[in-house]
Amino acid sequence: MMNELIYAAPAAGVLALLYAFWKAAWVRKQDAGDDTMKEIAARIQEGAMAFLKAEYKVLAGFVVVVAGLLAWANYGGEGRSPLIAVSFVVGAIFSGIAGWAGMRVATNANVRTTAAARDGLPQALAVAFSGGAVMGMTVVGLAIIGLGGLYIAYTMGVFDITAGDAAQQYGTLGTVISVLTGFSMGASSIALFARVGGGIYTKAADVGADLVGKVEAGLPEDDPRNPAVIADNVGDNVGDVAGMGADLFESFVGAIIGAMVLGLGYDVVAEGESLSPVLMPLVIAAAGVIASILGTFVVRTKEGGNPQHALDLGAFGSAFVMAGATFGIAHFMWPAAGASVGDGTDPILWWHVGAATVIGLVTGVAIGMITSYYCSMDKRPVDSIAEQSKTGTATNIIAGLGMGMESTALPILCICFGVVGAASVAGLYGVAIAALGMLSTTGIQLAVDAYGPIADNAGGIAEMSEQDPKVRERTDKLDAVGNTTAAIGKGFAIGSAAMTALALFAAFAQTSGIADRGINISKPVVMAGLFLGGMLPFLFSSLAMRAVGDAAMDMIEEVRRQFREIDGLLEGKAKPDTARCVDISTKASIRKMVAPGLLAIITPVVIGLGGEAIQDKLGAEALGGLLAGVTVTGVLMAIFMSNAGGAWDNAKKSFEGGGYKMKDGTVHPKGSEAHNAAVVGDTVGDPFKDTAGPSLNILVKLMSVVALVIAPLL
Amino acid sequence: MMNELIYAAPAAGVLALLYAFWKAAWVRKQDAGDDTMKEIAARIQEGAMAFLKAEYKVLAGFVVVVAGLLAWANYGGEGRSPLIAVSFVVGAIFSGIAGWAGMRVATNANVRTTAAARDGLPQALAVAFSGGAVMGMTVVGLAIIGLGGLYIAYTMGVFDITAGDAAQQYGTLGTVISVLTGFSMGASSIALFARVGGGIYTKAADVGADLVGKVEAGLPEDDPRNPAVIADNVGDNVGDVAGMGADLFESFVGAIIGAMVLGLGYDVVAEGESLSPVLMPLVIAAAGVIASILGTFVVRTKEGGNPQHALDLGAFGSAFVMAGATFGIAHFMWPAAGASVGDGTDPILWWHVGAATVIGLVTGVAIGMITSYYCSMDKRPVDSIAEQSKTGTATNIIAGLGMGMESTALPILCICFGVVGAASVAGLYGVAIAALGMLSTTGIQLAVDAYGPIADNAGGIAEMSEQDPKVRERTDKLDAVGNTTAAIGKGFAIGSAAMTALALFAAFAQTSGIADRGINISKPVVMAGLFLGGMLPFLFSSLAMRAVGDAAMDMIEEVRRQFREIDGLLEGKAKPDTARCVDISTKASIRKMVAPGLLAIITPVVIGLGGEAIQDKLGAEALGGLLAGVTVTGVLMAIFMSNAGGAWDNAKKSFEGGGYKMKDGTVHPKGSEAHNAAVVGDTVGDPFKDTAGPSLNILVKLMSVVALVIAPLL
Repeated sequence: MMNELIYAAPAAGVLALLYAFWKAAWVRKQDAGDDTMKEIAARIQEGAMAFLKAEYKVLAGFVVVVAGLLAWANYGGEGRSPLIAVSFVVGAIFSGIAGWAGMRVATNANVRTTAAARDGLPQALAVAFSGGAVMGMTVVGLAIIGLGGLYIAYTMGVFDITAGDAAQQYGTLGTVISVLTGFSMGASSIALFARVGGGIYTKAADVGADLVGKVEAGLPEDDPRNPAVIADNVGDNVGDVAGMGADLFESFVGAIIGAMVLGLGYDVVAEGESLSPVLMPLVIAAAGVIASILGTFVVRTKEGGNPQHALDLGAFGSAFVMAGATFGIAHFMWPAAGASVGDGTDPILWWHVGAATVIGLVTGVAIGMITSYYCSMDKRPVDSIAEQSKTGTATNIIAGLGMGMESTALPILCICFGVVGAASVAGLYGVAIAALGMLSTTGIQLAVDAYGPIADNAGGIAEMSEQDPKVRERTDKLDAVGNTTAAIGKGFAIGSAAMTALALFAAFAQTSGIADRGINISKPVVMAGLFLGGMLPFLFSSLAMRAVGDAAMDMIEEVRRQFREIDGLLEGKAKPDTARCVDISTKASIRKMVAPGLLAIITPVVIGLGGEAIQDKLGAEALGGLLAGVTVTGVLMAIFMSNAGGAWDNAKKSFEGGGYKMKDGTVHPKGSEAHNAAVVGDTVGDPFKDTAGPSLNILVKLMSVVALVIAPLL
Repeated sequence: MMNELIYAAPAAGVLALLYAFWKAAWVRKQDAGDDTMKEIAARIQEGAMAFLKAEYKVLAGFVVVVAGLLAWANYGGEGRSPLIAVSFVVGAIFSGIAGWAGMRVATNANVRTTAAARDGLPQALAVAFSGGAVMGMTVVGLAIIGLGGLYIAYTMGVFDITAGDAAQQYGTLGTVISVLTGFSMGASSIALFARVGGGIYTKAADVGADLVGKVEAGLPEDDPRNPAVIADNVGDNVGDVAGMGADLFESFVGAIIGAMVLGLGYDVVAEGESLSPVLMPLVIAAAGVIASILGTFVVRTKEGGNPQHALDLGAFGSAFVMAGATFGIAHFMWPAAGASVGDGTDPILWWHVGAATVIGLVTGVAIGMITSYYCSMDKRPVDSIAEQSKTGTATNIIAGLGMGMESTALPILCICFGVVGAASVAGLYGVAIAALGMLSTTGIQLAVDAYGPIADNAGGIAEMSEQDPKVRERTDKLDAVGNTTAAIGKGFAIGSAAMTALALFAAFAQTSGIADRGINISKPVVMAGLFLGGMLPFLFSSLAMRAVGDAAMDMIEEVRRQFREIDGLLEGKAKPDTARCVDISTKASIRKMVAPGLLAIITPVVIGLGGEAIQDKLGAEALGGLLAGVTVTGVLMAIFMSNAGGAWDNAKKSFEGGGYKMKDGTVHPKGSEAHNAAVVGDTVGDPFKDTAGPSLNILVKLMSVVALVIAPLL
C-alpha cells in the first residue's frame, strides 16, 4: 500500500542520525593537538555553548507562551486541534537540537582540523567535512523524523485525529496536515531568532576585533592579545553554524509542508483513492536524505588534489541522483491516471511532478551561478567595485550598493521562469515540488556550507596557538575552496525561499478559503496589505543593522578599555579578558534579537485576526496582500544585501596578496588608500551579508507559515 | 449645464499662464547686478540651455518614434483612435515647454536674487519666490490647458471622436478618455528622462567639483578657480528646476487622468445622466490652480521677519482653501442622488468625494512631517548618524542605510491608512481623488520647491562674483528656509505617487477588462509579474547610480587635467575651461539617461503584449502583477533613498558651524575625523536623493500609464 511509504521518512531520518553519530564519534577520536590549541578550542566551545544556553533560555519562554496561545486558539473548532501546540513545541525543540548538535561537533572539529592540517590537506579536509556532514545529517534527519513521526502519531494511537467517522477522511487528513504546520512554525521561529541573534553576535564581535584590534592597535588577524578574538571565533560558530543549521532546518521543513498542504487539493485525495500527493513530499525528502548520505562518501581528495572537485562531486552527484529518484518515486506513487485540482484543467501525470523537480534544480543552479558571478574575484562586478575604490570610500560604497541592486535582476528572472515553468507543468503543487527539489539534498549542501566556518575557525586556532605557517596556509586553502559550492548553495537557499514562500502562500489561500474568490490586488485592502508587507523587510533590516551597530559600539568600548587598563597586554605580557567580550556579545545579541523576531510573528496575526474582526474575509485578503508584499521585497532585499556584502568582501580581498591592478595599470597593494576604502566597504557589507540578508530568507517563510497556521481561524 | 464646467479648466490654465508671464516680466525688470555677476549668470544660463537643447534633440527622436507606433497600433480598433499619438506629442511638448520656461526664469531670477540680496532679505525673497511662482504656474497652467483643451477638441469639431451615434455616448466618452491617456504618457516619459538626465548631470558635476576642487585642491565651495563650478551650478538648475518641473507636471496630469478614467465606471456616466465623475477631476484641478495663484499673494515678509512663515502661509492657506473648495465643487457637480459603480455597494454621495480629498491632504501632510523628522538636524535620526560618525565612515554609512530603511515604516503606514480610508468613503475613485487632493495645489508647492535652487544659485553667484559676505549670508538664510515646506512637498510627492499609481493601476484593470475576474496574486503568472516588477526599481536605481559614478569619473579626470595643465589656474592668474566641464556633464547625462528610461517604457509593453500573444488575458494578468510589484518596491526604494540621502546631508551639516557635540560631551568641528566620515556619507547619499530616489516616483507612474495606454490592445 502506497500510504505505508510514509514510514520511509522517519526510517531515513534515523539512518541519517546514525550516520551523524558515527561521524561525530570519529571526529572526537581525532587528535586535538597541543595544550595551547586545546585551551583555545575549549574557550571557543565554552563561549559558543554559553551563547546557546542563554539564547535557549529566552526562547524557552517564548515557546511556552506561543504553545499556550496556539492550544487555546485551536481548542474545539472544527478542522482544528490543540495538538498544533505539540507540533510547534516539537519543531522548536528539534530546531534547537539541530543547532546545538551542529555547534557541538563544529567546535570539536575546528581544533582537530588544525591538528590534522599539520599532517596534510586531505587529512584536514576529512575532519572539517566530517564535522559539516554531522551537522547536515542531524538537520535533515531531525526534520523528517519530526514531520514523519508526528504524521504517524496523529493518524494512529492516542493522538489519532482521524479516528471516528472514516468517511470524513479528507476533512480529518486536512486537520492532520494543518496541525503539522505547527512544526514548521516552531522550526521557523527558532530559526529566525537564531539567525538574527547569531548574526548580531558574529558581527559585533567581528567589528570590535577588527576596528580596535586590527586598525587601532595594529594587531594581525586572530592575534591572541586581542580581547575580542575569542568572541570573534565564537561568533563564526554562532552565526554560521548554529544560525545556518536552524535556517536550513526551517527551509527543508517549510518546503515539505508547503507541498503537503497543496497536495490536499487533489481530487484523488478528496475522493480517498490515494494520499500520494500529500505524502509524496515526505518520501522525496527521505530519498534526498539517502542521496546526501551517499554523496558524502565521494568527498575525499589526495594530497595535491583539488578539494573543490571533491565537494562539487558530492553535491552535484547527490542532486543528479535525486532528479532521477524523483521521477522514480513519482512513477511509483502518483496515481497512474493522474490527479487534478478540480478546476477543469488537464490532470497532472507522474512525469509532470518529476519535471517540476528538474525545473527547481535548474533554477537553483542558475541562481547559484549568478550569485557566484556577482561575488567572485576577477569578475566584472567585484572588479568594478575594486576599481571605484581608487577615488575613495564614497565611490566604493556607491559601486557596491549599485552592484547589489543590479544583482537582483537575473536571479529574479530565474525565479520567474522557475515559478511559471513549474506551475505550467504541475500547477502550484509544481512550484512547491520545485522548491523541495532544490532543497532535497540539503543534507550534503549543509555539510559543504558548514565546512566553511570549521575551516575558518581552524585557521584562527592555528594563528592563536602560533603554529607553523604552513598549517595556516593549508587551513586557508581549505577555507577558500568550497566557495563555489557554497555560492550555489546560497542560490538554492534564495530560490527555494522564494518558491517555498509562494507555495506556503498558495497553501494559505487554500486553507483560509479565499483561493476561490482570489486575492485581488486591485482591491484597496489588498493593496494596503501589499504596501505594508513590502515595508516589513526594510524595517526588519534596519532593526537588525542598528542592533549590530549598537552591539559593536559596546564591544569597541570594551576592547579599548582593556588595552587601556590591562598593563602589558599589547606587549604580550598579560592576558586579555576574553570572557568579558564573549559576555557582551552574548547579552547584546540576545537582547536585540527579540524586537525583529516578534515583528515577524505578530504582524500577520494582528492583520489577519484584526481584519477578520472588522469584516468577514477582510483579514484573509489583507493578509494575502501582506504575504505577497513581504515575499517580493524580502527576496529582493535578501539578494541585494547578500550579494553587495559578498562583492564588497571580495573587492577588499582583491587588494590582498600582490595588490590590485587597476585599468590604468597602477597597482594598489594592501594598506594603500584604495585598499583602505575597500576595507570600509567590507565593513558596511558585513551586517548586510551576515545579519540582515540571511534573516530575510527566514522572515518571508516564517510570516507565510504563521499565516498558514492561523488560516483555519480566519 | 454641468458639463460646460469643463471650460473652466483651460480658462484657469490661461489665467495661470498670464500670471506667469506677468511675474516673469517683473523678474526680468529687476537689477541683474554688476558685470561679473552678469557674466557668470550668462555662463550658467548658457550651460543650462545647452543641456536642454541637447536633451530635447534626443527626446524629439524618441517622441516621433513612439508617436508613430501609437498611431499605428491604435489605428482602426474599436474604442481606440490614432489621435492618441496627438495627445502623446502634445503631452511631451508641453512637458518640454514647462521645463524650458522654468529653467529660463530660474536662470534669470538667480542673479537678480543675488543683486536684490545686496539690498535686503525681503527684496531677495520676492525675486526668488517670483521665479519659483513662474515655474509653478507654467506647469499647472500647461497641464490643464493640455488636458482640458484636448478633451474639448476630441468632443467637438474636426477631431470629434464622439460624433455619430449619440446613443454610444458612453463608449465614445471612454474612447476620448483613453485617447487622453496619451497626454499623460507623453508627460511622464519626458519627465523620467528629464529627472534621470538632470539627476546624473547635477551629481556628476557636484562630485567633480567637490572631490577634486574642494578636497584635493582645497578650494572653498563655489570658488571661481574651480573648473567644474559652473557645471555644478548648471546642474542645480538642470536637476532641481527642469527635472522637478517635468516631474510635477507628470504627477499633476497623472492624478487627474487616473481619476477621470475611474470616473467612467459610475452608473450616472454609463446612463448618460451626468458626466460629472469624469469631468470633476479637471474642475478640481482648475480650482487648485486658482487657489495657488491666490496663495502666492500672501508670500511676503518684512526685514527681520521669518520667510518660512510666509511660505507656509501660502502653501497651507492654498491647501486649506482647496479642501473647502472641493466640497463646494462636489456639492455642485456630483449627482444629488449619488453615483454607484454598479457592484451593489451604497452609492457615493457628494460629501464622500470631499472627504476623500481631506483624507488625501491629511495623509500628505503626515508623510511630509515624517519625512521632515527623518531629515532634520537635531532630531534623533540625523543625530544618531552624526553620533555614529565618531567611529568612522563604515558606522556612518551603516547608520544612514539603517535609518533610511527604518524611515519607510511610518510613511507606508500613512499610505495604507490613506488608501483604505479614501477607498472606504469613495471606493477606488476616492483613492484617485485623494491623490488629486494632495496635488491640486501643485502650483504653489512647486513655487516653494523651485525657490530653493534659485536661492542656492544666488549664493553661488555671490561667491563667484566675490560679493560682500553679508550677501552670501542673506542668500544662505533664504536657502535654509522653505526646507520644512519643501519636505512637506516631498511627502505630498511620494504619497501622491503611491496613490496615483494605485489609481492608474485600478484604471488599467478597468480598461483591460480584467477588473471583474480580478488580478489574483495566488496565480503563478501574477506572482512572477510581481517579482519582476518588484525587481525593476532595483535595476533602475543601479543603472542610475552607475551612470552617476561613470560620469563623475569623467568629470574628476577633466578637473584634475585642468589643474595640471593650465598654468596659474590655482593661483587665480588663469581662467578655467568651464565650458569643457559643462560639455562633459551634458554628454554623459544624455547618453546615460537612455537605458533606464527605455527600461521603464518597454517592459510593460513586452510583458503585456507578449503575454497576450501566448494566451488571452495572460498578458493583462502578468502586467497587473508587474505594476503592483513596481509600485510597492518603487515607493519603498524612493522613500528609503530620499530619506537616507537627506539624513546624511544634514548629519554632515551638523558638524558645520560650531561643530557637533556627541553624547559623551566631545565636540567635533568641521574638518575633524567624524566630519570627514559624515562627508563621505553625504557623497553616497547624493545619487540616492538627487538621482535615483526622485526618478522612482516617476517610474512607478510611467509604467502604470504605459500599461493604461496599451490596455485597450490587451
